[in-house]
Amino acid sequence: MPLPRHPVQELLTRIDQLFAPLSVETVPLAEARGRALAREVIAVLDVPGFDRAAMDGYAIRAADHGPRTLIGEAYPARPFAGCVEAGQAVRVMTGSPLPAGADTVVPFEQVQAVSDEPSCQRLQMPSLPPGKNVSPRGEDVQAGQRLFAAGRVLRPQDEALLVAAGVTSVFVHRIPRLSVLVTGNELVPAGSTPPNYRIVDSNSTLLAALIVRDGGEPDVGPIVPDQRDALREALLQAEGDLILVCGGSSVGAEDQVPTLLAQEGELLLHGLALKPGAPTGLGSLRGRWVFLLPGNPVSCLCAYDLFAGRALRRMVGRGVELPYVRVRVPLAEPILSSLGRTDYVRVTLQHGQAWPLPQRGASVLSSVCQADGFVLVEEHQPQLEAGQSVAVYLYDTLRRNDRNDL
Amino acid sequence: MPLPRHPVQELLTRIDQLFAPLSVETVPLAEARGRALAREVIAVLDVPGFDRAAMDGYAIRAADHGPRTLIGEAYPARPFAGCVEAGQAVRVMTGSPLPAGADTVVPFEQVQAVSDEPSCQRLQMPSLPPGKNVSPRGEDVQAGQRLFAAGRVLRPQDEALLVAAGVTSVFVHRIPRLSVLVTGNELVPAGSTPPNYRIVDSNSTLLAALIVRDGGEPDVGPIVPDQRDALREALLQAEGDLILVCGGSSVGAEDQVPTLLAQEGELLLHGLALKPGAPTGLGSLRGRWVFLLPGNPVSCLCAYDLFAGRALRRMVGRGVELPYVRVRVPLAEPILSSLGRTDYVRVTLQHGQAWPLPQRGASVLSSVCQADGFVLVEEHQPQLEAGQSVAVYLYDTLRRNDRNDL
Repeated sequence: MPLPRHPVQELLTRIDQLFAPLSVETVPLAEARGRALAREVIAVLDVPGFDRAAMDGYAIRAADHGPRTLIGEAYPARPFAGCVEAGQAVRVMTGSPLPAGADTVVPFEQVQAVSDEPSCQRLQMPSLPPGKNVSPRGEDVQAGQRLFAAGRVLRPQDEALLVAAGVTSVFVHRIPRLSVLVTGNELVPAGSTPPNYRIVDSNSTLLAALIVRDGGEPDVGPIVPDQRDALREALLQAEGDLILVCGGSSVGAEDQVPTLLAQEGELLLHGLALKPGAPTGLGSLRGRWVFLLPGNPVSCLCAYDLFAGRALRRMVGRGVELPYVRVRVPLAEPILSSLGRTDYVRVTLQHGQAWPLPQRGASVLSSVCQADGFVLVEEHQPQLEAGQSVAVYLYDTLRRNDRNDL
Repeated sequence: MPLPRHPVQELLTRIDQLFAPLSVETVPLAEARGRALAREVIAVLDVPGFDRAAMDGYAIRAADHGPRTLIGEAYPARPFAGCVEAGQAVRVMTGSPLPAGADTVVPFEQVQAVSDEPSCQRLQMPSLPPGKNVSPRGEDVQAGQRLFAAGRVLRPQDEALLVAAGVTSVFVHRIPRLSVLVTGNELVPAGSTPPNYRIVDSNSTLLAALIVRDGGEPDVGPIVPDQRDALREALLQAEGDLILVCGGSSVGAEDQVPTLLAQEGELLLHGLALKPGAPTGLGSLRGRWVFLLPGNPVSCLCAYDLFAGRALRRMVGRGVELPYVRVRVPLAEPILSSLGRTDYVRVTLQHGQAWPLPQRGASVLSSVCQADGFVLVEEHQPQLEAGQSVAVYLYDTLRRNDRNDL
């Protein structure tokens, strides 16, 4: 009984139909870090809130000509109390409120003193257009202006702009909780030394890290044996907004999860034309959505990123794009795929080209540590040619300066 | 008294001489997230720890020919107890220990039953090379192998690989504490409504977010007035591994910090041939290093990323590269710079080209929110031409799917 081979797009479409952003809550700006805005953000204040000097110099009226008489000075937060009339100038420092009457700042270095009596300092300066070296009120931000659209994940400078514009809290979506259930009789928990013929469960660690990266809260349960009753019990006790079951998702004798869902809940879709990651599925049990993820770690990563992660990204309002920077580079060597199948091909970047890693099994986790990223060969592409420009999704969000030594 | 115009490289070189990774500590794997490895990591276990079936099928001896007699079965963690001899086969599921004597797995779909007596099932199968569909012990990782070099920031799959390889803790550098002192008489704290001629301090928020991003722990003090005594007091009370003073760093009447350091500590370097960010400096007071950062927020961001952030990145062992993904794209329009000066030019990416934003003042923070990234025009380049390939540092670590509405 082979796995069905649904097109990848079929599951993507189902996910986009089924998963929407969770309810909206308001949080202080500091708690919004890494979360997507649920609503657009509107500026409360003008920035700056007054016309101010953009350079150190003399504030004057641009329409005047001839020497000016210095009548005072202004500093940030210490405005000049009077008004600048024709033939007058006020010494200003960068950030000082522009004195009333003035409309222009002439930088110090363009000004010469023509008389230097302490009581009556006269200054010679060039003509400048009105507004020169002045930051007008609202130059940076105007109160009422839309600053960011919903969906934006705030950068450090975005947080700063919101603070400057008087915004102290924002709307975000509630953080989804994802129950992670890893199943396999051969597995022992992370940190234990595996006895004969056992292996350490690394998928719990992988999925927890991926969920945190994508803005969810992982709730990782103990390893579940490959037994129908144990699986049913674990599924029914999971309390997440979404359940990820990893392992037991294929069609072998030990793969209990698809039949369990089909018989006691709903198995919406199972089996994809995807390599690796074919034993991926989506179903539901008692009102909770359940992703079936393959137990092979490379398949698990691929299936999480393409599908379960997409559901999570939709729940937090981040949108459906893969959470990787994408670069376009030429392919150094051809990639053979198969018409009608999507391939997830690990590549390294060298000399501005993408080099496919020698194909290794879906159980070889080190291959996705060694790779710089991956290429998706879509189902309509039987192969990619050397020299062809391809989109590489980069695993690292930081620029890499270390070399990988695997 | 104009600012000195030291080349940017001069300060970079000083930083690389002065700042080294902090002391090394060992932490559980989960606490290493986002931190750079301080030491290489060596695998403790073989992964897998035994030869195992890589597919569902029949385990045989490849050297045999002719039909095989089925003598038993194996499952993950439930090995076949006997030994496979010539002419025999054991049914295995993916992940099962390879039975003793067998060296190859023939997938189910390549096998035909030639007799189906329950007591003596005979199977016809093709010849396969020895080792086919077997994951040998250590295929993924070999005990003793170096998995990652020092400096690596672990990806989700890296964490998983370490868990699989029996590594539960790693060496990282102590998290540096950075004291942030923002100075300016015109500033009011984030969250307050500024009275006349005051503005909200956004640089504390900006620097705190940048420091967290780069792996440090910010310690943001209250706003310091532009008074020498207050600044001296604040500097002497700061307890960070590094002090960032923001504002008061130029050469105007209110710019107390450079002279304070020069007179009471050491002013190592002050003033750069950099736009924006010229009033940047580095000094020390009572054994603590102090970065002088400009108060204009765009200049502050630029000076942090290029200099103070570099010191931090060195202290946490991340290396000196800017913490942004870099892409090479053609420039859509020329950029005018000035020979001998480094320019930090904000750009947007559209249609695969980098578009310089209209030059706006260093006080216009929204410009770095609107931009997709920046280009550095180095001091030997008087201008960049349209069509020329340039390196763009991308502000977002995620792929952007929202449009910025500023």
